[in-house]
Amino acid sequence: MGEIRVGMIGYKFMGKAHSHAYRDLPMFFPETTKPVMAALCGRDEAGVSAAAKQFGWDGYTTDWRELVKRDDIDLIDINAPSDAHKDIAIAAAAAGKHLFCEKPLALTLADSREMLQAAEQAGVKHMVGFNYRFAPAVQLAKKLVDEGRLGRIFHFRAWFLQDWIIDPDFPLVWRLQKEVAGSGSHGDLGAHLIDLAHYLVGDMNEVIGMNETFIKERPMPSSMTGLSAKGSKDAPRGQVTVDDATLFMTKFANGALGSFEATRFAAGHRCTNSFEINGSKGSVKFDFERMNELQVYFTDDAEDVQGFRRVLATDPSHAYAAAWWPPGHTIGYEHTFIHEVHELMEAFREDRQPAPNFHDGVKCQAVLEAVDRSIDERRWVAIEEM
Amino acid sequence: MGEIRVGMIGYKFMGKAHSHAYRDLPMFFPETTKPVMAALCGRDEAGVSAAAKQFGWDGYTTDWRELVKRDDIDLIDINAPSDAHKDIAIAAAAAGKHLFCEKPLALTLADSREMLQAAEQAGVKHMVGFNYRFAPAVQLAKKLVDEGRLGRIFHFRAWFLQDWIIDPDFPLVWRLQKEVAGSGSHGDLGAHLIDLAHYLVGDMNEVIGMNETFIKERPMPSSMTGLSAKGSKDAPRGQVTVDDATLFMTKFANGALGSFEATRFAAGHRCTNSFEINGSKGSVKFDFERMNELQVYFTDDAEDVQGFRRVLATDPSHAYAAAWWPPGHTIGYEHTFIHEVHELMEAFREDRQPAPNFHDGVKCQAVLEAVDRSIDERRWVAIEEM
Amino acid sequence: MGEIRVGMIGYKFMGKAHSHAYRDLPMFFPETTKPVMAALCGRDEAGVSAAAKQFGWDGYTTDWRELVKRDDIDLIDINAPSDAHKDIAIAAAAAGKHLFCEKPLALTLADSREMLQAAEQAGVKHMVGFNYRFAPAVQLAKKLVDEGRLGRIFHFRAWFLQDWIIDPDFPLVWRLQKEVAGSGSHGDLGAHLIDLAHYLVGDMNEVIGMNETFIKERPMPSSMTGLSAKGSKDAPRGQVTVDDATLFMTKFANGALGSFEATRFAAGHRCTNSFEINGSKGSVKFDFERMNELQVYFTDDAEDVQGFRRVLATDPSHAYAAAWWPPGHTIGYEHTFIHEVHELMEAFREDRQPAPNFHDGVKCQAVLEAVDRSIDERRWVAIEEM
Amino acid sequence: MGEIRVGMIGYKFMGKAHSHAYRDLPMFFPETTKPVMAALCGRDEAGVSAAAKQFGWDGYTTDWRELVKRDDIDLIDINAPSDAHKDIAIAAAAAGKHLFCEKPLALTLADSREMLQAAEQAGVKHMVGFNYRFAPAVQLAKKLVDEGRLGRIFHFRAWFLQDWIIDPDFPLVWRLQKEVAGSGSHGDLGAHLIDLAHYLVGDMNEVIGMNETFIKERPMPSSMTGLSAKGSKDAPRGQVTVDDATLFMTKFANGALGSFEATRFAAGHRCTNSFEINGSKGSVKFDFERMNELQVYFTDDAEDVQGFRRVLATDPSHAYAAAWWPPGHTIGYEHTFIHEVHELMEAFREDRQPAPNFHDGVKCQAVLEAVDRSIDERRWVAIEEM
Repeated sequence: MGEIRVGMIGYKFMGKAHSHAYRDLPMFFPETTKPVMAALCGRDEAGVSAAAKQFGWDGYTTDWRELVKRDDIDLIDINAPSDAHKDIAIAAAAAGKHLFCEKPLALTLADSREMLQAAEQAGVKHMVGFNYRFAPAVQLAKKLVDEGRLGRIFHFRAWFLQDWIIDPDFPLVWRLQKEVAGSGSHGDLGAHLIDLAHYLVGDMNEVIGMNETFIKERPMPSSMTGLSAKGSKDAPRGQVTVDDATLFMTKFANGALGSFEATRFAAGHRCTNSFEINGSKGSVKFDFERMNELQVYFTDDAEDVQGFRRVLATDPSHAYAAAWWPPGHTIGYEHTFIHEVHELMEAFREDRQPAPNFHDGVKCQAVLEAVDRSIDERRWVAIEEM
Repeated sequence: MGEIRVGMIGYKFMGKAHSHAYRDLPMFFPETTKPVMAALCGRDEAGVSAAAKQFGWDGYTTDWRELVKRDDIDLIDINAPSDAHKDIAIAAAAAGKHLFCEKPLALTLADSREMLQAAEQAGVKHMVGFNYRFAPAVQLAKKLVDEGRLGRIFHFRAWFLQDWIIDPDFPLVWRLQKEVAGSGSHGDLGAHLIDLAHYLVGDMNEVIGMNETFIKERPMPSSMTGLSAKGSKDAPRGQVTVDDATLFMTKFANGALGSFEATRFAAGHRCTNSFEINGSKGSVKFDFERMNELQVYFTDDAEDVQGFRRVLATDPSHAYAAAWWPPGHTIGYEHTFIHEVHELMEAFREDRQPAPNFHDGVKCQAVLEAVDRSIDERRWVAIEEM
Repeated sequence: MGEIRVGMIGYKFMGKAHSHAYRDLPMFFPETTKPVMAALCGRDEAGVSAAAKQFGWDGYTTDWRELVKRDDIDLIDINAPSDAHKDIAIAAAAAGKHLFCEKPLALTLADSREMLQAAEQAGVKHMVGFNYRFAPAVQLAKKLVDEGRLGRIFHFRAWFLQDWIIDPDFPLVWRLQKEVAGSGSHGDLGAHLIDLAHYLVGDMNEVIGMNETFIKERPMPSSMTGLSAKGSKDAPRGQVTVDDATLFMTKFANGALGSFEATRFAAGHRCTNSFEINGSKGSVKFDFERMNELQVYFTDDAEDVQGFRRVLATDPSHAYAAAWWPPGHTIGYEHTFIHEVHELMEAFREDRQPAPNFHDGVKCQAVLEAVDRSIDERRWVAIEEM
Repeated sequence: MGEIRVGMIGYKFMGKAHSHAYRDLPMFFPETTKPVMAALCGRDEAGVSAAAKQFGWDGYTTDWRELVKRDDIDLIDINAPSDAHKDIAIAAAAAGKHLFCEKPLALTLADSREMLQAAEQAGVKHMVGFNYRFAPAVQLAKKLVDEGRLGRIFHFRAWFLQDWIIDPDFPLVWRLQKEVAGSGSHGDLGAHLIDLAHYLVGDMNEVIGMNETFIKERPMPSSMTGLSAKGSKDAPRGQVTVDDATLFMTKFANGALGSFEATRFAAGHRCTNSFEINGSKGSVKFDFERMNELQVYFTDDAEDVQGFRRVLATDPSHAYAAAWWPPGHTIGYEHTFIHEVHELMEAFREDRQPAPNFHDGVKCQAVLEAVDRSIDERRWVAIEEM
């Protein structure tokens, strides 16, 4: 299968990132299956047609129901707001289309399970957009864990800190509305951390969390796009219905202890998506704001030169790096999507399921909801309850 | 009161740090009350007499019960193992001596309350050794909080990471035995974090924790001192009866969310005593391994130059710094004790209670035990329950 | 002028970077003039045809002399090895083509002056590829200088450190041969530093340098591409005819002192292109390995919170950043080329010369040669001598 | 020789640092020879008597000529202003006293040679106060070099950056007057870098430098002590007769290239005394503002985890560290003096010359003057010319 024809629904922040990934992939990874940017879909015709032209799509449509049935489309890429994921995915699967869905898969665990079931019944490929796995530095962390070079894992701690809504006059954008976003920092940011934990450490046994909405009312926005929005501070105010911050602790199945924090109220942190793993043979630290770097420590280094190494994951020995620039020449956020799409295309080339796929999406959703339940019921919640 | 005559019980790690603080204080802070190193006390005569000579004490004794009654002693400094604190403190208070006790105050909250009561009934001064408060960078954090320069506090996260017992053959030293140490990483390391949280953010409403003992049996040591020990890996093994790691979450009375982690299993972290505070107007970050630095962020910096500043707290405007060296010339761990003793001597000079005192020690103990209870009972525990 | 049709000569490291810039520009900067990837040129037909397909060029040719005369080409992009720049540029200018030439402009100052003269006589636009100017963090440094926010400049120090040829068995690639490369670390790396110095601080009065070739003979390569090469350590050896490292000092016209170091023998430095500026009101520091960051210090910060700020140049207030991702989402090396091409296209849109242009290339070449002369003659050399 | 009786001349910045070193040494290094603080000397009786009391000296005097002849004194410690070093050292040597002299040894190379000759003729021990050698992290760098773990050295670059006189109204303290200080940033800061270069890399063949006095006139001070001073900006102005900044380049005898910069005009740098060494097998980086750390890189690390390690030189395997606190507990500026005095006392215990001694002081002075000559004569100057 030399080409895959893509129909994509959504063209804002994630839509732009995905479009660019499709554009760039064949230039830097010419040996894999080639995605063809067939059609872009959005509700607003002016918006979607302009985006299609700007991003390089062959065509556009305003009707996703029509799109998912088109014979000339192999793969449906879903990055519309979260409340739309489920219906689209199920319809597309029913039409035999492969699925690439942004995280979170759905607003609820039950919905995400339906989506997985639909995909499996249809026998299509399915991928979920946990793009941070695809930073070369994260891939290096995974490799060190898998090769046993960190030993037995004792600790995983992770935090995703942002600061874009500290201002109490920042408008009530859709990401702050539960009925559209499903969740606040927890589902938006925490979901990434949970996936990284699953990827790097493994399954969790039980969780307990707490959360807070620091600013409970905000002015209604006059317009919004991506993470930014416009509005008057004097506009009528509405209720913030999602969490501003969620923290939780977990015990992993392998005995490791985990702690997680997702917040949009950490001044000075534009996008600190960070984790650390401590094992019996070594440790690693990652911070997305310095995404090309992994801090690595080994207990068996010579005793007078033990210390965290700042590894710049741009050498030919690092995942994906050889496709880019010489060592020391860094890459950026958008490259995580190119690598993600590479994995998706490789799955086509090798005829296998990509990873992460809807199983991972469901697993993440189960933890998200277990945490929410633990908050509601003020108790430890086992993942298997879910 | 120009001089205070000190009798000190304990002469290992903390005893050395305190001795040095008494020695150095008059040279760098000549204007405060002068501590006189009157007598050192320990059980082993050969050890204590050698230490007294080496550290500069005027005399020594092996009998603390005799020491606390001596007329020529004003202040009893208690840094013997934790299980000895209570009896000494109560006897010393009964004899009208002022008290300076290492943390944790006692093995239990009840004991620590008895100690506070004894001190208050005797009308003596009492201080507890939370020395990390006295790093100039921590003092700067406190100043920024108190002056409102960080605004409303949303988050406090803290972790105290060490790695000295990752090796499963490291011997079973007294710090790993509950009957002597009372607690493991929680009471040893977590106690410092809890005090910093109280100092910087305020009281906590409720907590929930988890802990783990990763290595459950260890060889008995042949000798030990401070944090180091000797022993054969083939020695008979005994049970580790304290936690290797404890994590907990809290809600502060002021609405902030807190997370805490103390562990001795974080490879590569020799002594990462670190915290971060996020407020509506700014943030600060501290790491004891770079104890002269405070990372400071303000939301009202000009929009094109916003970022965490690395403030080296060695300028004349910083606490204690003017007594030391020119700007940029850093100080070390032992200086926290010199500043701590400075506070104690200032309390004499100004005839007031020093801070932190036994009230702070009891407050810390209450949180420690509330966390333990939350672990035993797998539920949120309100501090006021304690 | 809505579109500019590009013919590009060279398709290795720089050719790939330029191609990608042309591909990405219209998607992220749709409002500027659009470059059309008309034809790619290289000597090896198999190579150039494959590259043209992979990179997205409409066609290809193996004859640059034919290319520069084609009516359907507006702009000639020259990124062939340095010894080919001059002939191509002069021929292209004679044919009325606009010019975009990689640095260094030519092998000698005299040649670069001819190129400038040719471009000026032809009345075409001309740009030279000093791409590092276009990192948003560097743009921020420039803005702070221009706005006087650093005050009077006292110091500029810069170093470009790499480590890719430390191994004495690394083959004798073209970059190590004077007749092709013109210069070693000096012309390759130092040239970038010199341009940044001109851009950020201004003209230099005089220079004095020193250099060294640490490994004087190397095995001949069997093949090479970009910065990498293959070869046997047992291959016959040839003479390294360029410098492995060059350092020099300068006095700027404005009274500032400058120091420069370019080396390929700094173990651990994959691509440390770094500079610092110290002025009477503040300082900035930049390191390309963390290219999204600028360290900024102001002398007029409140006295208790003075320190270098780590500014992540990804906010909407930073150059180019609004075209990319939300704050905190970093970009990479290749983006410097996209911004560079943006400047070039803006020059078309606004009908002006782009910056940096051949004047800057000549100025840089003059310093390069002045340094070489200062090394040969072991004396200070005034730039105006050149 | 169990004790050495010290007479010390000077009691300001360095005098305080030395006094503290004598006080602390026996407590932390009880196995070495013990310095006895016999007598302190200064011109102002009120000042010196107060200092003697505060610092813990047994007595004081205002007449150094009397002091150097006293029978009960073994060692003369000279930390008076630089212009007084020579006469004191020669008189003390003539009286058979051992010598410990702050750097720079003297105002001129000729003077420093006279001092060395006097010491050698008298057969006394002599040490010069290059204290930065004694940071454990610097000792680690030395160890790595000596053990060949960095391989062949290619580069040494060093800079000592301060910012305490950027304000043009900062008074004309003695350090800015050539007749007292001998030199400005060059002799004060550069001297330390030169000594580190000698210590870590070896002898230099030739040098060329440049310097600048950015602020040529300053108000006369009303009082001054250490690095600080008071004065009115409206006071009469005097001429600054030393350099504000000096840079130079060198070729080492072993073929390495060196670059040096000393300045008091680097805003944001309180005390950045920093160097980097690049060798064929590895590199090290040091910054005094983080003096407990050495960044270490090895070329033979596994290819996927190569990177600079941040080694905290507080482990038992590091020089001096076992005498202090557990790993991760840092030390400060003053400890360099304690270690320096330890070396001096060990020299007594082992009856050998300490290092660095007057030979090192003379070597440093030769480079300082060679640089000055290279500036005056605008040419490379060989060290052997001196």
